[in-house]
Amino acid sequence: MTDPGELQGPPTAPATIRRVTVIGCGLIGTSVALALRRVGIRVELTDDDPRSLLGAVRMGAGLALSSGGPPADVVVIATPPSTVAGVLHAAQARELGQVYTDVASTKARILTEAESIGCDLTSYVPGHPMAGRELSGPGAAHADLFAGRQWPLCPHPAMSPQAMRTVAGLVTACGGEVALLAADAHDRIAAAVSHAPHVVAAALAATFAGADPATLSLVGKGLWDVTRVAGGSPDLWCDILHQNAEPVAELLDAVARDIAGIATALRVSGPVEKVTELLVRGNEGRGLIVGAHPAGAARGGRIAA
Amino acid sequence: MTDPGELQGPPTAPATIRRVTVIGCGLIGTSVALALRRVGIRVELTDDDPRSLLGAVRMGAGLALSSGGPPADVVVIATPPSTVAGVLHAAQARELGQVYTDVASTKARILTEAESIGCDLTSYVPGHPMAGRELSGPGAAHADLFAGRQWPLCPHPAMSPQAMRTVAGLVTACGGEVALLAADAHDRIAAAVSHAPHVVAAALAATFAGADPATLSLVGKGLWDVTRVAGGSPDLWCDILHQNAEPVAELLDAVARDIAGIATALRVSGPVEKVTELLVRGNEGRGLIVGAHPAGAARGGRIAA
Repeated sequence: MTDPGELQGPPTAPATIRRVTVIGCGLIGTSVALALRRVGIRVELTDDDPRSLLGAVRMGAGLALSSGGPPADVVVIATPPSTVAGVLHAAQARELGQVYTDVASTKARILTEAESIGCDLTSYVPGHPMAGRELSGPGAAHADLFAGRQWPLCPHPAMSPQAMRTVAGLVTACGGEVALLAADAHDRIAAAVSHAPHVVAAALAATFAGADPATLSLVGKGLWDVTRVAGGSPDLWCDILHQNAEPVAELLDAVARDIAGIATALRVSGPVEKVTELLVRGNEGRGLIVGAHPAGAARGGRIAA
Repeated sequence: MTDPGELQGPPTAPATIRRVTVIGCGLIGTSVALALRRVGIRVELTDDDPRSLLGAVRMGAGLALSSGGPPADVVVIATPPSTVAGVLHAAQARELGQVYTDVASTKARILTEAESIGCDLTSYVPGHPMAGRELSGPGAAHADLFAGRQWPLCPHPAMSPQAMRTVAGLVTACGGEVALLAADAHDRIAAAVSHAPHVVAAALAATFAGADPATLSLVGKGLWDVTRVAGGSPDLWCDILHQNAEPVAELLDAVARDIAGIATALRVSGPVEKVTELLVRGNEGRGLIVGAHPAGAARGGRIAA
């Protein structure tokens, strides 16, 4: 498989973006800042937590935001989903930028909230880089976190085309691939590929809370992989899940029903078809996932069987 | 992290094992045969499916079993769990070997069955190499599949110490690490580290059966990892799950309850504590899993967030 990045050459800064302000110096905000700095864009940073701000500054992600400067070309809001609309409103009131975007994992509720509290929506382009790590904080950030990754942007009626062009330029400058999706569609897809899987992995990992040494001695690569994303921050993920409640709940109900159905089928030693049927559907879904993620398919992993 | 294999030097053949017969030329049986051949042990192979047998022979895993030869030092039964006791009984009736072991993922029910149909238990050492791949068949086999992997053996009252010593030598010759566990304990642990996770991964992957291209376009490494083991053979896994029904069902019920509980909490926009509580337990379990599998911890994976 050819890495798309190899064909494109290294990212460059678009002419329209010379100064960016990043609000929120966690993993994603700091990684955006590092990626932008690498292509020569001037970045200013701010965070309510002075330790995060200092951490990001020390990593070379930019300088602390100074008051009274000219508005940035783009303001990137990299705070938890439930805070984005409020942060956007405050930033617009301070005239921090000409164009605004965010990186939260949910989109529809933020957009509704931003409208209802009176944000200027013409300059706001909702966004979501599909990248992350199971580590958090500025120390886990790196400039190539978004290389070749999908980065949905969610057009909405009030948005100016110029704002969209500018933010698309920022995505490309970070090495990401722009994908255009309505906010509702984004949230349904994010529930399927990320939010519901997070809960499922956490519920499985939770069966190991307090596990005894004998059990842990037989842990293998299979369990390691299935539970990997369960290492994410509980507070951030709780916020994400509540912001995308309905699409996530719908999927979780389906998964819980299937799992409980297998437990019942095993208990009654019922017909094997019930169990096989789920495993066959699992094979089918897995086949599509593998086909959709060729980089993954190329890795020949081993599992504990 | 140091690979345990590096410290031990390459595996060697024990003096007590010169000839091994492997019954069942799937992924595990063929890999055992390849590992034994590599240390100079003579291997004979048999499989009900002539294509599997031919595949294994062509890979250099050994020669087809000839009738009328002297008994092998060890017979390795590498057939699906529900068939092991019957295969053992038939092999003992033909006097195929002096010592017998198997590689099935479940142990207690096989042992009970073997006793009830009149197998000679003095020469039978139940075993389970904790290794595998999401691929199956002889073509997926390789000689180092078991390198550094745990390989539980399950002592039982009728077993001769000599049989145990011989099979432990076979495990070491394959590069595996012997772990001694009672059959019941093995099955409870295997349910936790392998069987229940398989069902959970399958149920999640099943939500992607029939997924649309827009959804698949945003599939990332996180989902890839969570669903990886769901690629396993439905027939084999159905057999494994039914053979270890009660321990697996118990875990699945707990996981389904947790997942359904989160769905309900999200729907009613209830207190965030309910969701956070599971995610914190997930963090705790994940921490123990990472600690138990240092090779995994050394890999810094990215996730779709």
